[in-house]
Amino acid sequence: MHDATTILLSLFVIFVAAQIGAEIAQRLKLPGVVGEIVAGCLIGPSALGWLKVADIASGTPLDVLAEIGVVLLLFAVGLEMRLDDLKKVGRSAFLVGILGVVVPFVLGSIWAHSAGFEWARSLFVAAAFVATSAGITARVLQELGALQRIESRVILGAAVIDDILAMLLLGVVTALGGGEDIRVGRLILVLVQAIAFVAVIGWLGTRMMRVKGHWLEQPINPLSPLTIALTLCLGLAFLSTKLGLAAIIGAFLAGMIASETRKREELEHQTQPLLAFLTPFFFVVTGAKIDLSVFASGAALWMLLVVTVIAVISKFAGGFLGALSLGRRGATIVGVGMVPRGEVGVVIASLGLAEGVFSAEIYAVIVAMSLLTSIITPPVLAALLKREADEYEAPPPHI
Amino acid sequence: MHDATTILLSLFVIFVAAQIGAEIAQRLKLPGVVGEIVAGCLIGPSALGWLKVADIASGTPLDVLAEIGVVLLLFAVGLEMRLDDLKKVGRSAFLVGILGVVVPFVLGSIWAHSAGFEWARSLFVAAAFVATSAGITARVLQELGALQRIESRVILGAAVIDDILAMLLLGVVTALGGGEDIRVGRLILVLVQAIAFVAVIGWLGTRMMRVKGHWLEQPINPLSPLTIALTLCLGLAFLSTKLGLAAIIGAFLAGMIASETRKREELEHQTQPLLAFLTPFFFVVTGAKIDLSVFASGAALWMLLVVTVIAVISKFAGGFLGALSLGRRGATIVGVGMVPRGEVGVVIASLGLAEGVFSAEIYAVIVAMSLLTSIITPPVLAALLKREADEYEAPPPHI
Repeated sequence: MHDATTILLSLFVIFVAAQIGAEIAQRLKLPGVVGEIVAGCLIGPSALGWLKVADIASGTPLDVLAEIGVVLLLFAVGLEMRLDDLKKVGRSAFLVGILGVVVPFVLGSIWAHSAGFEWARSLFVAAAFVATSAGITARVLQELGALQRIESRVILGAAVIDDILAMLLLGVVTALGGGEDIRVGRLILVLVQAIAFVAVIGWLGTRMMRVKGHWLEQPINPLSPLTIALTLCLGLAFLSTKLGLAAIIGAFLAGMIASETRKREELEHQTQPLLAFLTPFFFVVTGAKIDLSVFASGAALWMLLVVTVIAVISKFAGGFLGALSLGRRGATIVGVGMVPRGEVGVVIASLGLAEGVFSAEIYAVIVAMSLLTSIITPPVLAALLKREADEYEAPPPHI
Repeated sequence: MHDATTILLSLFVIFVAAQIGAEIAQRLKLPGVVGEIVAGCLIGPSALGWLKVADIASGTPLDVLAEIGVVLLLFAVGLEMRLDDLKKVGRSAFLVGILGVVVPFVLGSIWAHSAGFEWARSLFVAAAFVATSAGITARVLQELGALQRIESRVILGAAVIDDILAMLLLGVVTALGGGEDIRVGRLILVLVQAIAFVAVIGWLGTRMMRVKGHWLEQPINPLSPLTIALTLCLGLAFLSTKLGLAAIIGAFLAGMIASETRKREELEHQTQPLLAFLTPFFFVVTGAKIDLSVFASGAALWMLLVVTVIAVISKFAGGFLGALSLGRRGATIVGVGMVPRGEVGVVIASLGLAEGVFSAEIYAVIVAMSLLTSIITPPVLAALLKREADEYEAPPPHI
């Protein structure tokens, strides 16, 4: 009984903090997600301490709820995205994905080497600069009703490519960092698997759904379109982690497949309450993982500033250059949208710590950088999209 | 990354098993919940072993998800129940609650004593016979669209009273079993707290909501009626465990309060996807906790049979006698609806095991009995309600 009391209290506190944070942020004309992350930071271990480090560690119930929340979020984003829409931006998305990995990796390794790391370690540090986390950007785009914009499609398409590249890079640097030889054959296998997964699921799944979409309505359960779509979401999320990709990639594909059926609008409608209940756990837990004590030391604070500036500029530059075909404004939006690192940077930093490649300080800096980029991006992105909307189009739906 | 893969696989397996189980059960004209529990039993540790004991132990992510599922279920049930409806059946519900505790407790202690337990231990064993778990019955009533029936209201009202009494009884027998003196003062305090909680929340909450229901729409978030109602649900679920009651009592009260607003129908509609996603975890995990290996020994099997028969008959008798004012048919439905013990019996048995009062065998038997009553009840209840409907009324909505 005591366990149930403790966990229910945590759920309650997180949920209330998220609501209050989002409300304040929105009243300040900021995206709600900023408020949720900041609220998480406030109630987290390094500020109020209502959530302890052990409460939000990997594999804990709260961490799993957070994971389910972001998986459902990307599923919902996929629902609003059709394969054909994505195909139209294929070239730009591909360029953004590639340049968005290469530029931060090169700049990151140069900085790390100049900061005194040997080359093998520098590459590992640089790998933590690479992977974009689509969750934060997706939420902002969704909040502003901007998922149908061409820039949104480029960003989400690029995020898939980005994640595949980041996974490969991680394979390479882990081998280097551990002093192992790089098995090119194995890496190619991993690459082929990942690309085959995305291509086969994306292409075959959507085709099948167009033809066999009525299968969703076969079961007796009147909510069966939703439950089958959620089954697909969990299944593909699992498969993509199995192949070394982020769970959200599979969830996004599942949503894209489900969006091909004529139940699409019903599904979009039904996922709203799921998102309202579960995504706050992701953003609050993300915020709670920020270790504010890093900011206590001047040297670390300086390092954090430098690392964050490099991370932001390099990712922005890569995204901007890749998306130049959309014009300067479009490219700016894409560049900014690619900036958040979120949990992927945190995962790489944790690996680095576990392998002994990172010191506790550089670990804390990388984690703080990953999360800082997630806090900085939403207001900038929202301001850009709103200015765009004010100048060229009817105002987006007010949320 | 490995953690995420494992948990996503479990979520996928549980969710698929629940869908298939519910579908098969419904095609066999049984309530879907039976299929979900049986599916859980099949994939659980004692059959296929796809879920391990450690996966579903108390406090694990899957156990927490299951708890959230049943909390949301009782919230949704509360949404369909108004305080005024409940008040009208107050007398019957009270009688059913009292007799439904007294009869099983008396018969249970007589059996336990005759089976060789000393009196103090017999009372502890008997306490595990007492508490009705409203989750199973509520789900069946909801599936059949029968929540508005007078019998449903009596059952749910009685479940609240039942839970208060069971908690008190547990306090008494724990003290007895541990050889402590019973502090009457403390027990009265616990009783007063619990009654005050239910009365104040139920009465004041609904009144406030009638007057101040527009508060739900104050926040910017367009889903705010739902998020505020869910906040209330988590908060009251926490408070009720804090007072020693089951979390579902608080959730039920929260639903009842929220049902007083003019957003009631919107809320009912929005909770459906939440239930579709989260309640399967409760029923599958409940099923997975059934330890089939108990059935291997003849003596234990016999004991299980006797205990289950006593548990079923005594609870049925108590409920039937308490509800006689509804007529024989109504009383039969109420009696059957009170039979499931679900997780409350399991909790008491776990306490008994931890305190050294129960042997491993009697523990396994009590757990199996608690869950068996949950499997037996749904088909019988569904059959009773359907016969009723065929004979007296228009058929209920086909689900």
